[in-house]
This record gives sequence, C-alpha cells and structure tokens, in this order.
Amino acid sequence: MHRIPEEVDTPDVLIDRDVLQRNVEKMAAAVRERGLRLRPHAKTHKVPEIAALQLAAGAAGLTVATLGEAEVFAAHGAEDLFVAYPLWVGPRQAERLRRLSAAARISVGVDSAEAAAAMGGQLGDAAAGIAVLVEIDSGHHRSGVHPDAAADVARAAARAGLRVEGVFTFPGHSYAPGMPVEAAAQEQRALDRAAGQLEAAGFAVPRRSGGSTPSALLTDGAAATEVRPGVYVLGDAQQLELGRCALEDIALTVAATVVSRHEGGPAGSTDGSTDDGADDGVPRRIVLDAGSKVLGSDRAAWATGHGRLMDHPEARITALSEHHATVVWPEDAPLPALGERLRVIPNHVCLTMNLVDDVAVVRDGALLERWTVAARGRNS
Amino acid sequence: MHRIPEEVDTPDVLIDRDVLQRNVEKMAAAVRERGLRLRPHAKTHKVPEIAALQLAAGAAGLTVATLGEAEVFAAHGAEDLFVAYPLWVGPRQAERLRRLSAAARISVGVDSAEAAAAMGGQLGDAAAGIAVLVEIDSGHHRSGVHPDAAADVARAAARAGLRVEGVFTFPGHSYAPGMPVEAAAQEQRALDRAAGQLEAAGFAVPRRSGGSTPSALLTDGAAATEVRPGVYVLGDAQQLELGRCALEDIALTVAATVVSRHEGGPAGSTDGSTDDGADDGVPRRIVLDAGSKVLGSDRAAWATGHGRLMDHPEARITALSEHHATVVWPEDAPLPALGERLRVIPNHVCLTMNLVDDVAVVRDGALLERWTVAARGRNS
Repeated sequence: MHRIPEEVDTPDVLIDRDVLQRNVEKMAAAVRERGLRLRPHAKTHKVPEIAALQLAAGAAGLTVATLGEAEVFAAHGAEDLFVAYPLWVGPRQAERLRRLSAAARISVGVDSAEAAAAMGGQLGDAAAGIAVLVEIDSGHHRSGVHPDAAADVARAAARAGLRVEGVFTFPGHSYAPGMPVEAAAQEQRALDRAAGQLEAAGFAVPRRSGGSTPSALLTDGAAATEVRPGVYVLGDAQQLELGRCALEDIALTVAATVVSRHEGGPAGSTDGSTDDGADDGVPRRIVLDAGSKVLGSDRAAWATGHGRLMDHPEARITALSEHHATVVWPEDAPLPALGERLRVIPNHVCLTMNLVDDVAVVRDGALLERWTVAARGRNS
Repeated sequence: MHRIPEEVDTPDVLIDRDVLQRNVEKMAAAVRERGLRLRPHAKTHKVPEIAALQLAAGAAGLTVATLGEAEVFAAHGAEDLFVAYPLWVGPRQAERLRRLSAAARISVGVDSAEAAAAMGGQLGDAAAGIAVLVEIDSGHHRSGVHPDAAADVARAAARAGLRVEGVFTFPGHSYAPGMPVEAAAQEQRALDRAAGQLEAAGFAVPRRSGGSTPSALLTDGAAATEVRPGVYVLGDAQQLELGRCALEDIALTVAATVVSRHEGGPAGSTDGSTDDGADDGVPRRIVLDAGSKVLGSDRAAWATGHGRLMDHPEARITALSEHHATVVWPEDAPLPALGERLRVIPNHVCLTMNLVDDVAVVRDGALLERWTVAARGRNS
C-alpha cells in the first residue's frame, strides 16, 4: 500500500524519488549497452531537477519540443539541446535562436526546403551556429518527409547557411498494442535509407536520431546513433497497458480523494423518471477529485479507461470530467470509504506534468520537497 | 477571414472581445426572460475580467469547481460564490472555507451524510456561515444522490450545523447529439422531485440550480431557480457540433502556424518499406503547431475531429500530439502554405483556458490587451 503524505491536499502530483532514480539509471544503462547516445525528451517532465538526474546518469543532451522549453533548460545549465520539431522561424524566433546558441549547443528539426530557407534567411550570419536534423516520416504520417526526399531538404538547409548534422524520426505509431516491434523496425529502415541519401549527396551524417519510449529499447543501434525516449522516466498507464513498463516502474501518480460514493442500482433507480424507460441502471462507483484538469484527457482507443488506480488494478475509470474521475468498482470488492485517498496513474504523463505548477517529491510516503515544473506551458 | 495580430507568436489563445461581449449579454438576457438567475461557471474561463463582464450583465453570482478558484475570484471582488462540487472537508479545507466566508457569500455542494458530517465537524461554529446545496443525479451518474435520498442528506447537513439552501444537479449527459432536450427534461424532473422531498422534510428550498450550456436555454424555469452554464461565454467545437452555438458565437480560437505540409500519396510511398505491404497510403495534410498541450485532448465519440478550423470548416483534425495537430485537407481545396497562420477552435474550451497563463484579447485582428488566467491550475 502506497501512502500519501498527510500534508498533501488533493488532487496533487506525487513523484516517487526512488522509482524515478531507478528509471533514470535503467534506461541510461540499457541505451549505453546498445552503443547509443541517450537524449531524453524533457517535454515529458519539464523539470530542471529531473533533467539534471538524466544528465548526471550520462545523457548526451536533452530533447525539447519548443524554443520556450529550450530557454528554460538552457537557463538551468543544459549545454546541448535538440528542438525535435519542424520550427517555422520568423524574426522573433530567429532572435531567440541566436540567444540560445550563445548559451548552448542548439540543433533543430526541419522537414521542408521552405522552412530551411526561412530559418536560414532570418538567422543570417547566425545560421552557421545552428545545426539541423532533417525529419523523416517513418510511418506515423505526422511531420517529416519521405526518406528519399531527405537529401533535397538537406541541400536547401546547406544553401541557407545551416549546418546539416543528420536525420531524425518519431515512430509515434509505436504507441499501440503489438506495434512497438514493427514501428522500431520501420524507424531503423527509414533512418538508414535517409542517411544513405544524405551521404550520397555528400553530407556527413553523424546523428541519426530515433526512439520513443515504446521503441527505444527495441532499437538495435544498426541505423540510429541516439534515442529520445521521454515517458520512461515517470511511466504512465499507456506504457503499462502496452507492456512497456510494470507497476513498480510508475514514478508519478496523482493523489486523489473519494468525494462521492454510490452502491449503484438497477434501471429505474436514477432520477425518479422510472416511466420513460431511457435508463439502463446506475453503476456501482466512486468519484475521485482528480479530473482531466490534472490527469489530462488523452485516451487511446485501446486503453481500458482514463488512467488506472495504483492499488486497485481491477477498478476502471470509465469517465473523466474536469474535476471528477468516475471509477467503476468490481462487484466483489468493497467500495472505498468517502474521504479515503487513492493514487491514480494518468494515461499520458506528459500532459499531467503540463497541468501543474509544481509536484510533490516523495519517498516511502514522506514528502521530501517540491519541484517547480519550470517549463510548464512553454508552448511556443 | 479572421486576422491574427502580427505580434502574437503561435500557438497562442485569442479571445475576440466583441464576440465575448455578445455572448455574455445574450445569455444574460435569455436567462432573465425565463425568470431565472444566472450563475455562470467560472471554471470555463478562470479570468477575473470575464467574470466582471458576467456580473456587470446581471449574473447573480459565480459558480466555481474548487476552493482554489473561489479564493481567486473572491480576491478579485466576487461577493457570491457557489462551489458546485461535493467537497470533502478536512482541517485545511475548513480553514479555507472560514476565510472565504469572511470575504464572500459561500455555498458548497454535498452529496452524502458522511461529507456533511465531516464538513460541519471541521467547521465547528463557522458551519452556520456556509450554505449547502444537495447534489442530485439527474441521469449523468457521476456525483449526486437519487432525488428521493436528498432529504436524508439535507437532514445530515442540518444536524452538522450547516445551512441547507437547496438542491443542484449537472446534466452532463446533455453533451451528446440529440440529448440536450431530453437531459434538460430529466434535470427539471429531478430538481422538482428532490425539492419536493426537502419541502416535505420541512426545509425551505429557495435555490434549485441546474443548467449546462447545452441545456441552459431549454430550462423552462418550472423547477429551477438558477442556471450555471459555463462554455457559452467562449464557445467551442463541441457546442458547435451539438448545434448549441454557431461559428459567429465562437469567441476563443488558438492561433497556429502551418509547420509541415504534405500532398500525400498512395500506399508504398511512406518510409521506403514498399515491400512489407503494411502501409495504406499517406494522407494529404498540414501539421499545425497547436497540439494537446494548448488545445486540450477531449474528444467525444461523436466529434468529427480534435477541434475545427475557423476559416476551413471542411478540414479535419485527425490526430493530435502534444505539439502537433495533423489536419487532413479536402482533395479539391489547395493546401495552405508553410508559415501560414490559421485559427483552431478547440473541442472543449475549459481545458484550453486551463493550459495557458494568459490570453490575447483581440478586436478586428488587433491586439487590445492580455488577460491573466488567474485561476489556472487551481485544482484544489
């Protein structure tokens, strides 16, 4: 049974310090064994203290999604930052990139000749200080070009004065049951093919960057040189249900209180409107005070609910409102009491971290300290 | 065509000042005509300036979801606040309620004898300063008791020293196609029946509170005395697709930039893996830099996508990542250019407001000012 510190009010985000440390070290070791560099995605946690643990364990740098995140982590001493995003650079973004590149080694994504030309044009002489990686579509069909188009984008970037350093991809289609192995294979083929195209066009390709949390440990290092997993450090219900982590790997939970409790009943017992036949019974349930405004509302089609309960794996969060989680309870288990406090595992931890200003760091049920989510809301 | 102010960087939240004002006044007039009091739910916007507009237009008070929201609006001068939530009150919550009740008229929800006893016990002598409304389940099956159990809860509250003032319900099942009319009818029956039970038990029932944005204007005033719509003031894609508002009622949009653009292609054109047959073609699409970390990821089963585009109603947001919206484009319309800026209507505006620290207030494409989302993240 995991205790919630008495001084915590619900809902609140708890991070287990020991589980966090174990996750940091396990991934660092596994990636090192494969001969790859680890560049964890800091958009997952947005916390400088967690980034520092990752770097101390040997991470080669950090990945971020926005200039705003890069600015926060650079201000906290990060020396090598990859904005793994196809930035569209206007005058204000160019000024921010110039300042960033004075503070740290900066690389950014690009997936079109137009964006490369815009970036180089806006940066002017500063373009040479920015490395670019061409984004490849390895089957997720979001951003990224076909591997065979990578050389065209690289040439445009070079013409614009940018330093081409390699290729990257995000196998987002690995977030589905049965997909991690196939997506990891597609990722490697796409990186390999794109890198080959760049080399044929005369570019050196020192960086070939891939890897989501589901696929990172399936990357064999044949094509990639670095991986960018994010979620592994905290864990979430998606990774749990994909079989990519176990309950004991979950470092982040949301502390919540039972605020409403209902034994349920048959059809006709709802609102007194027994005569209209529109009612199919009332579920046996509790309601927790953690809703979508603290858990986030990502729910994949294959998910069993809107998150899981740490100590009650058989319960199901069947509905999520902004401030309520409706949890349907197994018939053969007693309903928790009103006022009882439970721990919820969110479906997608990156969204949870983006909803709170700080988190409670705990060990054995005791509150150690609070960490500020310094890059929360830095969307641009 | 709606312009985005040049000084705005994307993604950013825009609120059209004139549409906002019109929405405030229209709902105020419609509710007044029905002889009801309007108590708008401030969890939608979390902005003191918007609350002030609602109060100036005649709102009887504000509804909030948490003590934290109540504290923010009380600090900004709100005099009558209803925490429409079944609070579980411990010593710290009791102290906050005591302080709040010194600053404003405070009412809170209760849906069990246990919670009433806990609240009264913790408040001690201060209990008499807090009004309670018993929450009724009108068919949504979240929190709330059966109407016939309302009197038991009211008696427990009275025994605990609290002042019973009425009943409330949230017809959340009105958020589905074809449901607003039926849900509004169930809401009225449930309020009527519960109020009758309280009166039979000797309670006066001056407040009978109902009303979501979909059902508020369907409330005929026969059973309710006040309504608590929230979303109407800003509008969102859910209300649009439910037919409860029109495009010209949408006050909030998210400004976004086209960062990636793909004409698409047939099967086999994805990652070079033409030999594995696992690929069913690449969609013709753009990618915008507004993802779930600014739009929110609520998506009802009946929604056509993860939000809508204000000026391109035929486009569909088929996928949402944290920082990407993938927008599939009609075959017969030209794809927007890279760098073009578009306005996205989020599915659920309450989540969007909870993701940003401030918003850009605009009129005719010009930036008027920025408002702080003062109650953002106040989840407890």
